[in-house]
Amino acid sequence: SRSIRAPRGSQLSCKSWVTEAAYRMIQNNLDAEVAENPKHLVVYGGIGRAARDWACYDQILASLKELNDDESLLIQSGKPVGVFKTHPDAPRVLIANSNLVPKWANWEHFNELDRKGLFMYGQMTAGSWIYIGSQGIIQGTYETFVEAGRQHFNGDWAGRWIVTAGLGGMGGAQPLAATLAGAVSLNIECQQSSIDFRLRTRYVDKQAKDLDEALAMVQHHCERKEAVSIALLGNAAEILPELARRAKAGGVKPDLVTDQTSAHDLVNGYLPIGWNVDQWKAAQQDESQHARLVADATKSCAVHVQAMLDFHAMGIPTVDYGNNIRQVAFDGGVKNAFDFPGFVPAYIRPLFCDGKGPFRWVALSGDPEDIYKTDAKIKELFPDNKPVHHWLDMARERIAFQGLPARICWLGLGERHIAGLAFNEMVKSGELKAPIVIGRDHLDTGSVASPNRETEAMKDGTDAVSDWPLLNALLNTAGGASWVSLHHGGGVGMGYSQHAGMVIVADGSDQAATRLGRVLVNDCASGVMRHADAGYESAIACAKHHGLKLPMIK
Amino acid sequence: SRSIRAPRGSQLSCKSWVTEAAYRMIQNNLDAEVAENPKHLVVYGGIGRAARDWACYDQILASLKELNDDESLLIQSGKPVGVFKTHPDAPRVLIANSNLVPKWANWEHFNELDRKGLFMYGQMTAGSWIYIGSQGIIQGTYETFVEAGRQHFNGDWAGRWIVTAGLGGMGGAQPLAATLAGAVSLNIECQQSSIDFRLRTRYVDKQAKDLDEALAMVQHHCERKEAVSIALLGNAAEILPELARRAKAGGVKPDLVTDQTSAHDLVNGYLPIGWNVDQWKAAQQDESQHARLVADATKSCAVHVQAMLDFHAMGIPTVDYGNNIRQVAFDGGVKNAFDFPGFVPAYIRPLFCDGKGPFRWVALSGDPEDIYKTDAKIKELFPDNKPVHHWLDMARERIAFQGLPARICWLGLGERHIAGLAFNEMVKSGELKAPIVIGRDHLDTGSVASPNRETEAMKDGTDAVSDWPLLNALLNTAGGASWVSLHHGGGVGMGYSQHAGMVIVADGSDQAATRLGRVLVNDCASGVMRHADAGYESAIACAKHHGLKLPMIK
Ligand SMILES: NC(=O)c1ccc[n+]([C@@H]2O[C@H](COP(=O)([O-])OP(=O)(O)OC[C@H]3O[C@@H](n4cnc5c(N)ncnc54)[C@H](O)[C@@H]3O)[C@@H](O)[C@H]2O)c1
Ligand SMILES: NC(=O)c1ccc[n+]([C@@H]2O[C@H](COP(=O)([O-])OP(=O)(O)OC[C@H]3O[C@@H](n4cnc5c(N)ncnc54)[C@H](O)[C@@H]3O)[C@@H](O)[C@H]2O)c1
Repeated sequence: SRSIRAPRGSQLSCKSWVTEAAYRMIQNNLDAEVAENPKHLVVYGGIGRAARDWACYDQILASLKELNDDESLLIQSGKPVGVFKTHPDAPRVLIANSNLVPKWANWEHFNELDRKGLFMYGQMTAGSWIYIGSQGIIQGTYETFVEAGRQHFNGDWAGRWIVTAGLGGMGGAQPLAATLAGAVSLNIECQQSSIDFRLRTRYVDKQAKDLDEALAMVQHHCERKEAVSIALLGNAAEILPELARRAKAGGVKPDLVTDQTSAHDLVNGYLPIGWNVDQWKAAQQDESQHARLVADATKSCAVHVQAMLDFHAMGIPTVDYGNNIRQVAFDGGVKNAFDFPGFVPAYIRPLFCDGKGPFRWVALSGDPEDIYKTDAKIKELFPDNKPVHHWLDMARERIAFQGLPARICWLGLGERHIAGLAFNEMVKSGELKAPIVIGRDHLDTGSVASPNRETEAMKDGTDAVSDWPLLNALLNTAGGASWVSLHHGGGVGMGYSQHAGMVIVADGSDQAATRLGRVLVNDCASGVMRHADAGYESAIACAKHHGLKLPMIK
Repeated sequence: SRSIRAPRGSQLSCKSWVTEAAYRMIQNNLDAEVAENPKHLVVYGGIGRAARDWACYDQILASLKELNDDESLLIQSGKPVGVFKTHPDAPRVLIANSNLVPKWANWEHFNELDRKGLFMYGQMTAGSWIYIGSQGIIQGTYETFVEAGRQHFNGDWAGRWIVTAGLGGMGGAQPLAATLAGAVSLNIECQQSSIDFRLRTRYVDKQAKDLDEALAMVQHHCERKEAVSIALLGNAAEILPELARRAKAGGVKPDLVTDQTSAHDLVNGYLPIGWNVDQWKAAQQDESQHARLVADATKSCAVHVQAMLDFHAMGIPTVDYGNNIRQVAFDGGVKNAFDFPGFVPAYIRPLFCDGKGPFRWVALSGDPEDIYKTDAKIKELFPDNKPVHHWLDMARERIAFQGLPARICWLGLGERHIAGLAFNEMVKSGELKAPIVIGRDHLDTGSVASPNRETEAMKDGTDAVSDWPLLNALLNTAGGASWVSLHHGGGVGMGYSQHAGMVIVADGSDQAATRLGRVLVNDCASGVMRHADAGYESAIACAKHHGLKLPMIK
C-alpha cells in the first residue's frame, strides 16, 4: 500500500508552477493526514475519490509532468483521457466527474459503471484536488454556528449546547467549530476509529463512555460556560430518539440539533440500527447485501429524522446539514421530513448574496510560515473585518494543519481578488517560499445547484436550475483559472446536485496577477448575479455596489 | 408582430466581427425563412427557442452591440444575465440552456419554470444560435439514408422507398434527403401548413390526396426508379398501422421505416389519434388540458411504435430517428419498444469514430456567392472526397437557402480545421465579402450524451455518462471558440440528453486563424477520444493516425 505525500519546497517536478500545483494538490488530497481512506483513493464523503484507480492516478501525475504551457489535460471521472492544445491563459486541467444524463442519474446506474471501472464519484473537492482536510469545512461550520447563535441567542453561545452526529471527513469539524463559536457540543459517532482520529487532531476534546456520562458532561460544562466538545460512541438513530424521549419527559434539551452522518450514500455512509460496524463494512464490499443495507439504512434515517422533527416541534432550532437525510427519510415514509430547514437557507444564503463563501489557499512550499504570513496579510488588508481576525487567530491556535499548510476564511466579492493579488505579490517578492494555490469549495455562492442543500428554497423557485454552475465553470475557464471542474452528485448524492470547482495559482508572475484579477472577481460575482437574478435584495444591492454588469437587473 | 432578418453586408453593428456574428446569428435563427414559429421565438423542434422572451431578446442584441473584446456575455436559458471581464482569446458568449439538476429534470418541472418566465427550452442549435433551417439537418439525414442504403441495398436506393412522418423543422428535410440519396419517400404529416411550407421550399415534390393515391404514386415512381417524394396529410399513428396491416396482408412493403414527429415533447409535438389540429393547438395553450394531451399522445405513440415493430418483425429496416418515440411507447406499456435500433448506432456511429459530423458554416455577408466560393474551396481542398463533391453539387442545385446563405457538409478530424483556415484566408484576402461563421449541430461526435439517441448502445455501456459533452464545452471555451453552449434535453426531451454547442468565427485575422486551428481540431478530436475510450477500434486507429494524445490508450 502506498504512502502519498505531496512534494514540498521550490523545486519543480513539472514544467510550470501551474501544473506543479495540480501535481502537488492531487497528491496532497491523498496524503494520509488529509484523506479518509487513501488506500482506495478516497478523500472524503463516503467514496469521494481523487482519481479513478491507481493506473489513472499514476498517469495523471505523468501527464502533468509533461504538460506544456499551451496544453490542457482532460480528466473524465478521475481518468486522464486527453491532452489538447490550448493556450497559456487557458486552464491547464479541465475536469468532469460523475456526470450522468438526468434520467440515469441514480446510484444504481452509478454503481454499475463504477464496478466496471468506468466511473468515479468525485464528491466536491475530492475529485477536483482542493480538499484541505477538516479545516476546509470548519470555517463553514463555524460560520453556520455563529450565524445560528446570532439568530437565536443574541450572538451568545455561552452555556448552550449543540447535538449532532458524524465525525467523518467533514462532520469531524463540528466539535471544534462549536468550540470556536463558544458552544458545548455532543457529537455522536458510530466508529471508534473516527473518534480517535478527531481526538488525536484536537478537533474533539473528550469522549464520554455512555449517554448518561455525556449528558452529565454537557451539563457540567454548560454551567461553567466552557465550550467543550464531547464525543459519544453509538448509533445516532438510537441515541437521538432516546435524547428526544428524555427531553420530552423534562430532561435536558439541546439548543441546536443537526447531523452529519453520510446519509447521502446509503451503502457506504450510514450505519443502520441493529448492524455493527464490522457487519456494515463487510456488507459494503458485498454487493448482494447492498439492497438490504439500503433498506435498513433508509428505515434508520426515518427514525433519526423523526427524532429531529420531535426536537423541531419542541421549538428547538433543528437543521439538515446538507447530507440529504430529510430526502431519505421522506422516501422512507416520513411525510413531513422537510418541516425543518436546511442550513443554507437558514444560515448561509445571506452570506452568498454578498458573494461570500469558502475561499481557501494552500502553501505549496509546505512551510507553515508561508500561511502565517498570509494570515497576517489578510488582517492587514481587511483591518476592520473583526470576525475574520477572530477566526484567523483561533484557527492558528486550534487547527492543526493536515498535509500542505492551508487556510480558509470566508471572503466575498471585492475581497477575494484583493487577497489573491496580494499573495501573488508576496510570491513575486520572495516573501513566501513558493507559490500559493487558491481555491474554494464547490459549495459556494455561484457554483452549485442542489435543491436539498445549497439552493433549497430559492426566492424565485429556481432551486433546480443548474445553468448557473455550468456558466460558472465556463466563465472560470474563459477567465483562465488553473483548473476547473464540473461535478454531479457531490454532498447530497447522485441525482441531487450539480456543481463547479475552481482553482487558480498565484505563482508571482504578472500573467497570474491578470488572471487572478479576473477569475477571483468573476467567480464571486457570478454568485451575486445568481442571487440577484433570483430576486434577493441584498444581492441586487451588492451587485450595484460593485458595479456588476447584469443586463436584466435595472 | 415582429419580422426579423439578420443584417447583411460588411457594415458592423457591434464592436467586432465575433460579436457581430452572434448578433446576426440570433436574428437569423428567428428569420421567418428559418424559424418554425418566430412570433413565439421558436426556432425548431417543438418549443426550441432562441431567447427566453422579447425583453431578453432585445437585451441580448443591446448587450452584444456594446460588448468589448475582453468581455463575455452570459446567457442563462435565453436570458442575458451578466457581462464579465475575460480576454480576447476567450469566447464572447457563454450559454447554458434548460439545465436542471437530474432529480428535477422532467417536463413537469420544466413547464412550471417556463410558465413563470424563469426558463427556456433551447433544443440544440435554437438556443445556441446556429440553426440554419432544414439544410442543417438534411445532410445528416442524407448521410443516414445513404449509409442505410449501403448496409441494406448495396448502396443502391433506386426503385426503393422510405416511409416516415413529420415535416417540421428537422423532419422536413427527410423527403429531400431521400431524393438526394436516390429513394422514393412517403412522408406523413398532420398539418397542411407544414406540407405547404415544404412544397414551397422544394423539400417535398408532391402531395397525395389519400393513402391509396399515395401508394399508387409510390409504386409508379418506384417502377420508374424516380426518386420522388410524396407528402400525405394525416395522423401517422393511424396511417402507419394501416400500412402495416396492408403489408401483412400482402400489400406493398416499404424498404425503410422511420419517424420524425416531435414525440419528445408530448404537449407540443405529437398529435394524438382522435384530435384535430385546432383542438390540439388550443390544448397546448390551455394548461388544464395538458395531462389529457400527454396521456392521449402517449397512447398514440404506443400504437405508432407497435406498427414500427410490426415492420421490424417483417424484416424491414426500422429505426428511431432520435425523437424518443420508443421511450414514450415503452412508458406507455410497449415492453419491446426498443427492439428496433436508433439511427445513431445503426448508421452514424462509424462516422463519429472518425470524428466526422455535421460541420456547417454561414456567410455573414448574406451573399450566396460567398457560399458558392466556399463550396468550390472544399472541393479543391479535398479533391478525392467524392461523396462530399456529390453532396455539394446536389445541395447547390436542390437546396434553397433559408435566411443567411449557409452550407453543411460532414467533415472529420483533420479536415474541419483545414476548411476553417482556408475560409479565414478567403476572408482575409477579400475573396469573400464578409466573415464566415463556423459551427455544428450538438449532435456531433464529441458533444452529446443521449442514451436513447446519439449514445445509444455504446460499446462499453457508458451511454449515460455526460462528462464528455461537459469536457467538450470546457475544452472549446479554453480553446477560444466564439460562443459555447451547454444544453439539456435537446431532441429527446427533458431528462434524456446533455450536449454542447460550439461556434467560431473566421474573420480573416491571424488571431482567428490561431483559434480555428485549435478549436476545430480539439472539437472533433474530443469525439474521437470519447469513442476511443469506449473501445471502438476505428476510433483508436483514427486517434493514432492523427497523433492524438490520449494518455490511457496505449
Ligand atoms: N458542505 C456541506 O454542505 C456539508 C458540510 C458537511 C457535511 N456535509 C454532508 O455531511 C455528510 C458527512 O460528510 P463526511 O465527509 O463527514 O462523511 P464521512 O462519510 O466521512 O463521515 C460520516 C461519518 O458518519 C458516521 N456514521 C454513519 N452512520 C452513523 C450512524 N448511524 N450513527 C453515528 N455515526 C454514523 C460514520 O462512521 C462516519 O464517520 C455528507 O453527506 C456530506 O455531504 C455537507
Ligand atoms: N438530430 C437528430 O437526431 C434528429 C434529427 C431530426 C429530428 N429529430 C427529432 O425528430 C423530431 C422532429 O423534429 P422537428 O424539428 O421536425 O420537430 P417539429 O416539432 O418542428 O415537427 C414535428 C412535425 O410532426 C408533425 N406531427 C406531430 N404529430 C404527428 C402525427 N401524429 N402524425 C403526423 N405528423 C405529426 C407536426 O405537425 C410537425 O410538423 C424531434 O423529436 C427531433 O428531436 C432528431
